[in-house]
Amino acid sequence: MDFQVQAMDGALRAGRCDLPRGGFQTPVFMPVGTRATVKALGPEDLEAIGAGIILSNAYHLYLRPGADIIERLGGVQRFMGWDRLVLTDSGGYQIFSLKELRKIRDDGVEFKSIVDGSAHFMTPEDNMRLQRALGSDIVMAFDVCPGADAPREEVVRALELTTAWLRRCAAVELQPHQRLFGIVQGGLDKSLRRRSAEELIALDLPGYAIGGLSVGESQEQMLEIAEYTAALLPPHKPRYLMGVGMPLDIVRAAAVGIDMFDCVLPTRMARNGTVFTPTGRLTIRAGACKDDPRPIQEDCPCPACRRFSRAYIRHLFNAGEIMGPRLATLHNLTFYATMMHHMREAALQGRFAQWQHDFETSYQSGG
Amino acid sequence: MDFQVQAMDGALRAGRCDLPRGGFQTPVFMPVGTRATVKALGPEDLEAIGAGIILSNAYHLYLRPGADIIERLGGVQRFMGWDRLVLTDSGGYQIFSLKELRKIRDDGVEFKSIVDGSAHFMTPEDNMRLQRALGSDIVMAFDVCPGADAPREEVVRALELTTAWLRRCAAVELQPHQRLFGIVQGGLDKSLRRRSAEELIALDLPGYAIGGLSVGESQEQMLEIAEYTAALLPPHKPRYLMGVGMPLDIVRAAAVGIDMFDCVLPTRMARNGTVFTPTGRLTIRAGACKDDPRPIQEDCPCPACRRFSRAYIRHLFNAGEIMGPRLATLHNLTFYATMMHHMREAALQGRFAQWQHDFETSYQSGG
Repeated sequence: MDFQVQAMDGALRAGRCDLPRGGFQTPVFMPVGTRATVKALGPEDLEAIGAGIILSNAYHLYLRPGADIIERLGGVQRFMGWDRLVLTDSGGYQIFSLKELRKIRDDGVEFKSIVDGSAHFMTPEDNMRLQRALGSDIVMAFDVCPGADAPREEVVRALELTTAWLRRCAAVELQPHQRLFGIVQGGLDKSLRRRSAEELIALDLPGYAIGGLSVGESQEQMLEIAEYTAALLPPHKPRYLMGVGMPLDIVRAAAVGIDMFDCVLPTRMARNGTVFTPTGRLTIRAGACKDDPRPIQEDCPCPACRRFSRAYIRHLFNAGEIMGPRLATLHNLTFYATMMHHMREAALQGRFAQWQHDFETSYQSGG
Repeated sequence: MDFQVQAMDGALRAGRCDLPRGGFQTPVFMPVGTRATVKALGPEDLEAIGAGIILSNAYHLYLRPGADIIERLGGVQRFMGWDRLVLTDSGGYQIFSLKELRKIRDDGVEFKSIVDGSAHFMTPEDNMRLQRALGSDIVMAFDVCPGADAPREEVVRALELTTAWLRRCAAVELQPHQRLFGIVQGGLDKSLRRRSAEELIALDLPGYAIGGLSVGESQEQMLEIAEYTAALLPPHKPRYLMGVGMPLDIVRAAAVGIDMFDCVLPTRMARNGTVFTPTGRLTIRAGACKDDPRPIQEDCPCPACRRFSRAYIRHLFNAGEIMGPRLATLHNLTFYATMMHHMREAALQGRFAQWQHDFETSYQSGG
């Protein structure tokens, strides 16, 4: 894994990450394709948006259609017709979110399938073999993620298991093109974050993620821990803040040194009819859009804004037509990609602080 | 309206239809976009498939979003971002299908909105003004369509009202680019079909449709009436068989002299996971597709077949993902467009009978 920081502007890093099968520029937002499809879009749509890497979820693909099928069909990229990079999340977070349906043991986790109720047991080794079969480019460790309101003893146990399991993950041989990222835990406690980071860094992995944030804490707390933890991580390796977030979360987290992001919100909100613009969010179903001939965003290069009015897209949503969610998703991911690109360009030109000020002022103006 | 028959092979006609804003070759299948969207596809998808004309429904657009909104936004084409041709059905068939919710009077029809239950009354003149506001290229008459099991007196009344209403429709001035088609009724009774055709032909309209078929009768009955009626219609004008149909219906109806077709089945069946191939239908959810690396159809140029396996598309359907219906729709409309193209090419080369034999043999072979 080759990661180059091309410029720093404050703590913001404009970088480039190259892997055996492709690369991407940072800061980067990775569209989420949990079940080997970014909902409502195809690979050619993602290429047009300029995505170099997308995210999928090993746990979801394990449940359906099953890793054996994907392996037989040549891995997750070939399965979904995508020839750029894929990062697979281990699914640790999703399994631990099952609450009543799972039990964490020292050697792995027991859980019930959300698809058919069947009982499963998964060890860190099992999860690595699963991601090896899927053949993704970046493999996330099988970690333990406590909730924002977890008592300290639970946060400590999650941290300790995460470190122990990461050692076990790292001992499993992956495919030659695959790279394993560790995930720093420790909740909102800086001393625990430091301990987790130090234990993980000792394993000298290709990249590090910050987990256990965006689970219910305030944006202020999230940014404080992200900044603190980012500063502990090796400067020559990419830093990935998992599950974050809304546009201002991402801009502010990139500003404290985060390189990689993912979040379901831009795609999920699109399907519910909420789109992003430089002056804030727009509810496309709102009566104000009824006969509005303007595109969602005047200067946006996305297929929705090049060809359709707000009035038409509102009609699609009101009539329950599939093209409504599709057009809104195309727009929101284009908005995110453009935002990442602008951030990077500003950093390369040493004017990020001004860009951030202008972006935040406009975004919070409400049009 | 300029309609040229370029070649005849038996009764099959290879033709070309030119209107002020565009043209299309015949025989043609018009994808159905009832609510100003061909479900799951955008205009650029339809362009790639080679569609020159699509169908929309004046009645549905009247209910939602309303003709005033579409008119203010520049007409139905501009509203939906489509710069080729649109045929609008009057919605007569849809209104008469409401059964308990409508009442046919001599001067028009009373009905309740399926959107909000509100009461409406629509005359033939109202319907023409509606389609004038929508600005479509081909305007269908406001007709009365009896069911396949309707008693003779009901079929006669529908015929008489259809003629009377067509005279009233023809008296309403449309936009200069718009062309009105009449709709022959008369059920399964040849003498009534002859009477209806003669009354309508007297009005010398740019084109004629055959209505009241594909409403529950057998394919044999449908083809017999289509053939009989087609032979009554002016040879230098396009003939449109409304609501037909499945691939073998279309091939056989084109063979007896029909030029234009529309049907919701290829798009509706796609959304339910049924796709068409040269060897018949395929249920993509079937277990046999579980790990099948082949595309839906080996030699198909559609975006689904160029990039995805049956196994992947099955996964999308099983996971309830939007891309499943979208890919299946892209395929089915490509299958139909290819079938129409092949029929036309065969007719131009005087080998339609052989082509039809080969197509039907393969289609009925079941792979």
